[in-house]
Amino acid sequence: MSERIYNFSAGPAILPETVLAEAAEGVREIGGSGMSILEVSHRGKHYEAIHSDAEAALLRVLGLSADDYAPLFLQGGASLQFAMVPQNFLSPGQTADYVVSGDWGAKALKEAKVFGEAREAASSKSEGYSHIPKDLDLTPGAQYVHITTNNTIEGTGYFALPAVGGAPLVADSSSDFLALQRDYNKFALLYAGAQKNAGPAGVTMVVVRRSFLATARTGLPKILAYQTHAEANSLYNTPPTFAVYVVGLVLKWVEAQGGLAAVEARNREKAAILYAALDETPLYELAVTDKADRSLMNVTWRLTNPALEADFLAEAKAARMDGLKGHRSVGGFRASIYNAFPRAGVQALADLLRDFAQRKG
Amino acid sequence: MSERIYNFSAGPAILPETVLAEAAEGVREIGGSGMSILEVSHRGKHYEAIHSDAEAALLRVLGLSADDYAPLFLQGGASLQFAMVPQNFLSPGQTADYVVSGDWGAKALKEAKVFGEAREAASSKSEGYSHIPKDLDLTPGAQYVHITTNNTIEGTGYFALPAVGGAPLVADSSSDFLALQRDYNKFALLYAGAQKNAGPAGVTMVVVRRSFLATARTGLPKILAYQTHAEANSLYNTPPTFAVYVVGLVLKWVEAQGGLAAVEARNREKAAILYAALDETPLYELAVTDKADRSLMNVTWRLTNPALEADFLAEAKAARMDGLKGHRSVGGFRASIYNAFPRAGVQALADLLRDFAQRKG
Repeated sequence: MSERIYNFSAGPAILPETVLAEAAEGVREIGGSGMSILEVSHRGKHYEAIHSDAEAALLRVLGLSADDYAPLFLQGGASLQFAMVPQNFLSPGQTADYVVSGDWGAKALKEAKVFGEAREAASSKSEGYSHIPKDLDLTPGAQYVHITTNNTIEGTGYFALPAVGGAPLVADSSSDFLALQRDYNKFALLYAGAQKNAGPAGVTMVVVRRSFLATARTGLPKILAYQTHAEANSLYNTPPTFAVYVVGLVLKWVEAQGGLAAVEARNREKAAILYAALDETPLYELAVTDKADRSLMNVTWRLTNPALEADFLAEAKAARMDGLKGHRSVGGFRASIYNAFPRAGVQALADLLRDFAQRKG
Repeated sequence: MSERIYNFSAGPAILPETVLAEAAEGVREIGGSGMSILEVSHRGKHYEAIHSDAEAALLRVLGLSADDYAPLFLQGGASLQFAMVPQNFLSPGQTADYVVSGDWGAKALKEAKVFGEAREAASSKSEGYSHIPKDLDLTPGAQYVHITTNNTIEGTGYFALPAVGGAPLVADSSSDFLALQRDYNKFALLYAGAQKNAGPAGVTMVVVRRSFLATARTGLPKILAYQTHAEANSLYNTPPTFAVYVVGLVLKWVEAQGGLAAVEARNREKAAILYAALDETPLYELAVTDKADRSLMNVTWRLTNPALEADFLAEAKAARMDGLKGHRSVGGFRASIYNAFPRAGVQALADLLRDFAQRKG
């Protein structure tokens, strides 16, 4: 095997090495079954234990009760949730409020408009999504308020949840899922594609408050109704068994790390190392204007001298750092430093940033 | 590692051992990248090659041209296709015809009724789905005719495609996908969950004729429009990268076996061994009444003395055979003998069937 590289990819992204080793074993054989995890029936005892353990661990890690919340393992990514949320909770003539703090939030809003009156309650688009919009123009009696807790492309995140009156709070939490301690009971529905902190691409985690779920529309295609999946414990149809298995391994890893509070503390340390190096020299420019909104997951910057960008990337590559190119829609650089990203790699990038600035700045 | 068992599961199901070994390596590290296949970006060079190779192999194996057909790797299983097909191709006031040859076809019809006039053009339900219904009551000018090419639960399959006039033929091919040589150009749209012959659960293959795709409705949620995925080569949102990777390995394996004609010949041999043993003694009763409709993939039977069922299962288990219980909706036994199921395992089951009948029949 080659040496592990520092994989700064925004997702699919770095996973814990112990999880990868166990998953590789599972692909060979799972639990002395004489079968691969890829081969076992989703209705058989081997997978059923994996599935129900993962459901329980998901609620436990988030501090949610199974009486109050249904944990779901779905498919289709956050992009399908952009449609399922309004399809289930927004009818023509009803209103839902969307806070647009980045490109993904804009996509969620656009998809919701197919189903009902989806309104932009706030947006920082005209400032290049350089911060989380704080002043919300909320609709009294809105069906829900939708936010994006972390903006993968732009590098901003929520650290205090917005006041939304009594409206149900719905969130796309794809890129900071399992990375921060929050009061998750504040969410009526939270969804996340796994491929950042939680596992491989191909499974979408949803936790939905049962009392909110009870207000969902009926008469939908069965496969697109949250109620279908809640009633069947995500076994209405064949779940993405391998992806759920790996998410289960990651959840165990999170618990072994000390849970979300401990994970967040490490994430804060790592992010601080990187932001300190970026703040130190005028060669680097951060697009995020409000320091309080700086993402702990996706650190974005530009060079004030863009002619040096290719040099920087080449030096990073030579130092076995990959995935640092910014999203194609914004350019520049992005270091995604999810839960499993090692502190040593963050330090190596900070060292390179300082060294490069000294030589070329 | 334990000895491999004979895994007769209906899906997720047995996969080729060489594929499993390579996939386990890929989970450790892919292509000397210093990253796991679970960690590489879907926009990076490692995955992009895997993705485009799998698209090309899928068309090549099915004998389809990229000019005429779009190959798609989606999520959500056949169950999401039950909704997406009518959502894309059936509007209120329009009619689509469904041939209901089993439980899954009935589900597809039910889901389609949410979107438009979905009609039952034929059904064998009143005969317990004991055969493929051949007399079709087709609607002139129907948007499409939907069939299920293999009925996983009941153990029947199509070997000659039905005459549907000029109507576009749409098929759920989940449980015989990549198992038979057909003229795939006859299908306007064919879909299949991977978890039988093609790979792990979590990816759905669709091939859609481009001229049919051009007739799809507009104004749909983007994520639920086939056009979105065709335009983006299934990279509109993050694909289930690992599942696509394994499907790519399986497609290579199919080609190494000699392609679909060779695979079908082996499948016919295996099925013949099993049906011969079942036909030999009155202890076994096949629910499928028309021999020409007997599935090559899922062989179903009952004991004429049901009191012996538990004994049979126990003996099979002792002989390291797993997954032989019939679907919970029909009971009895089912041996799923997909592409990767070894002939030796089929022979072992046939031997047990004969031996058991001799002792207990």
